[in-house]
Order: sequence, then C-alpha cells, then structure tokens
Amino acid sequence: MSQQITVYTSKSCPYAHRVELALVEAKADCTRYQIDLRNKPDWYAPKVNPVSKVPALAYGGPPVPADQPSPESTKLTESLVLVEFIADLFPESGILPKDPVLRAKARLFADAVSNKLVPAQVAVLIRDEDPEQLVQAYEAIQALLPPQGFALGPFSAADIAAAPFLARIELNLANDLGGFPANEGKGPKILELLHAPKLARMQQYLKDIRGHPSFVATFDEASRSVTLHFLCGHGH
Amino acid sequence: MSQQITVYTSKSCPYAHRVELALVEAKADCTRYQIDLRNKPDWYAPKVNPVSKVPALAYGGPPVPADQPSPESTKLTESLVLVEFIADLFPESGILPKDPVLRAKARLFADAVSNKLVPAQVAVLIRDEDPEQLVQAYEAIQALLPPQGFALGPFSAADIAAAPFLARIELNLANDLGGFPANEGKGPKILELLHAPKLARMQQYLKDIRGHPSFVATFDEASRSVTLHFLCGHGH
Ligand SMILES: N[C@@H](CCC(=O)N[C@@H](CS)C(=O)NCC(=O)O)C(=O)O
Ligand SMILES: N[C@@H](CCC(=O)N[C@@H](CS)C(=O)NCC(=O)O)C(=O)O
Repeated sequence: MSQQITVYTSKSCPYAHRVELALVEAKADCTRYQIDLRNKPDWYAPKVNPVSKVPALAYGGPPVPADQPSPESTKLTESLVLVEFIADLFPESGILPKDPVLRAKARLFADAVSNKLVPAQVAVLIRDEDPEQLVQAYEAIQALLPPQGFALGPFSAADIAAAPFLARIELNLANDLGGFPANEGKGPKILELLHAPKLARMQQYLKDIRGHPSFVATFDEASRSVTLHFLCGHGH
Repeated sequence: MSQQITVYTSKSCPYAHRVELALVEAKADCTRYQIDLRNKPDWYAPKVNPVSKVPALAYGGPPVPADQPSPESTKLTESLVLVEFIADLFPESGILPKDPVLRAKARLFADAVSNKLVPAQVAVLIRDEDPEQLVQAYEAIQALLPPQGFALGPFSAADIAAAPFLARIELNLANDLGGFPANEGKGPKILELLHAPKLARMQQYLKDIRGHPSFVATFDEASRSVTLHFLCGHGH
C-alpha cells in the first residue's frame, strides 16, 4: 500500500471525524487538510468534491500539495464509504473483522446511527423538538451493544460510525449549545435524560469511547463544541 | 461455506429483490420464503425481523423449515447490508470486486440510489410530486455510469442496488400505476420524460439490466407491477 492518501476534513464535522478515526486505527500514512466550512477554498468544489462537503479523500496520483489536488488522484466521498475504503486498504487494521456476520453487524450498527441517532440529533439539538426522540435513539443504539466493550467487542467500524456523533451530542448539550433558546439550561436538562439509569450501558460505552486511543488522538473538546450545530448534522 | 441461508422475501419489494439478485449472482444454495406483506405470518416479527420488513436473512443454525426459524440462526436485515454480507460470503462472485477503489465506487453508486433515486421515486410515484425530481435523479445516476456496460463495467453490487428500483419505476409508470389520479395517462407521460434523448444512457443501462441473467431469473413483470407503490418504497 504505497499510494498517497489526503483527507479533507474539518474539526467540527462528525462525518469527517469518522474518517480520521479510521485513518488512525489503520495507522495510515496520510495528509490531513483542514477545510474552513465557513470559508471554503475556491478549488475545493471543482477539484475535490463537487458537493463541497467534508470529508473527502484524494487517493493516489502524483505527489502534490493538498491545496493543489491533482486530477490524477481518485476522489472519494461519503464518510461510511470512506471508512469501508480504509478498512479495505488496511484489512489487518481490524476496522472491519474478517467474519462476514461480524461485518454485517458493524454495518447494521452504522445503519442505526444513520437512521436513528443522526435524525434524532438533528431533531433535538438543531430543531429543538421533543428530547424523547434522542432518548429513544440512545435506547436503540444501546440495544445493539453487548454487555461490555465496544459494539463488536474490539473497537471497529461500528464505533467509528457512532463515536463522533455521541461525543458531540454530549458536549453540545453540556455546553447548552443547540437550536433551543440560550441561557435556559435546556441542554444540560436534556443531558440528564440521556444519563438516566436506564441508559447506563450507553454511558459506559461513551466512557470507553472517550478512553480509546484513536478517539483521544482525534477529538479535541475545546475546538469542537462551539460550531457543531450550525455547520453540521444536516448531511444525510 | 456450508451454513444454510434462508431469505425472507416478497415479489413486490425492490429491497428484497436486491438480495435475490445477490444470491443468484453468488450461485448461493438457499431457501426462499415468500412473505405476504398484506398478511404477514405471526411468527415473522418475533422470530425473524422485529421491524417486520423484508428482506431478512437467517444464516446458519440447525436445518429447520423456513416457517419455523431457529433461535440459533443469525438474523440479518437491511438490503444493502445483506448484499455486502453475500459479497463477503462469496468473494469470488464478483458482486464486489477486490480493488478497494472499485468497491468504494460501487458503494457510492448505491448511496446515490438510496439518497437520490429512492426519494425521487417516493416523491413522484407515491406522493404525485413534480416529475422533474425523477428526471434529476435519473441524471444523477446516469452521471455515474461509464460510457458502456454496468456501473463498474461488469454487473456488481452497484447494479444490484439500482436495478430493482429502476425496473419498478419504469414498469409502474408504463402501467400508469402510482399515487396520481387514475386514467389520466400521467404515468406514461412521466415515462416519456425519462426516455428523453438526454437520458439515452440510462435507457441503455435499463436495457442491459433487463437482459442480464440474474435479473431475468428474479424479475417477473406480470407479478410485480400491480402492488408496488402501495406496499413499498417507504422504507429508508
Ligand atoms: N453524508 C455525508 C455528510 C457530510 C456532511 O454533511 N458534511 C458537512 C459538515 S459536518 C459539510 O461539509 N457541510 C458543508 C456544506 O454543506 O457546505 C458524509 O457522510 O460524509
Ligand atoms: N431499509 C430496508 C427497507 C425494507 C422495506 O421497506 N421493505 C418493505 C417492502 S418493500 C416492507 O417489508 N414493508 C412491510 C412493512 O413495513 O410492514 C432495506 O433496505 O431492506
């Protein structure tokens, strides 16, 4: 595996965070380029991703600076596709195990994140809808967890799909950041619902995520909380 | 690969059709069980799929009749997860090629089907919204096709994701079946828009799909048209 990998990312973006986690898990040699989502460089859409979102990946092609992408590299997008791509490039990374049943379980877990957790995050943290939606999404994710450890036991693509969203939901709520009225303490109140005893397994899961090396290496609380809900969470 | 495979399917369902295509491509030895979506057997939700949808797959476990599923078999759901599962079980089937870039392209194509074609089908054929949405979805899919052949050249998971939806869209429109007023010829008129010269590549693609052996083996026009839009297309 000697082709170059350049990842276009942004600290606030949970989708991009998935790709960073996968690259760290794979111990991939790669170049990270931060895209300012409020002020994207002119070359980004025409040369990297026509829909102008992060994450995107440039793979192969000649050695070029990240801000002068070559037309000869392959451009790939969509966080879950990129995580599978990195798992395919680095089969020994364990991002996806070899057993077909476990691989399917990782994908079903990621599917629950896409179709339950992310819509609930958008509904509750951005649109200020009934927090119960988020409680139910947490319950749905929790129901897929084994008694201990990560979704499949060892850290995998399943956790890579979930961790960036869970961490940002918790951080934003703790900081009372959301589409709800400011200074009424609504964020922390919602967080209390998510920390109810019936969701204890999820809290252990979050604790395990926060202690996992690739997560520690890729998540910086200070720089990630503030802008989340303005820029992110609207992608599918 | 000696574990048993039982697939719970339904003729009208495009999602289930994906799994049938993959099983035929893989030449998998399997049992098909038809679920009547208007009258599902009592055992289906508790013993196979709690959300009571097709497709679902029972893998492994002791030899049992399909209508008496064993708790010992692994139950898996979600059509795209099942196609990946079958590709993982049968790596030589070519459902997913070995090259990581081609695998990523197949997944991006399936993503476009899920996020462009399926929503447009629901909007236009079920909710009777502006047909232009379907034209644009066809254009988006067309833009991902190479000059000739299937999405990756040979028939693959990309085409498995798309074919069941494309075939049903065309068949329903030709039969004037949709959420639009009956007997006004609206279906065939929308079909004309989809057969415009600017979408010629898509028509060739559909022709290639209709001639492909696994498609021929799994699609029976007569039995599939009538009920489509009442039962299907609402899943995510
Ligand atoms: N479905 C995409 C979603 C990516 C996405 O929504 N990214 C956001 C940031 S979190 C973005 O780039 N937004 C910038 C924009 O839309 O202009 C994925 O999974 O990668
Ligand atoms: N996301 C699912 C969707 C499956 C789905 O929506 N299946 C429909 C039939 S096309 C179904 O079983 N509906 C029955 C019901 O909802 O009761 C997949 O990809 O497999």
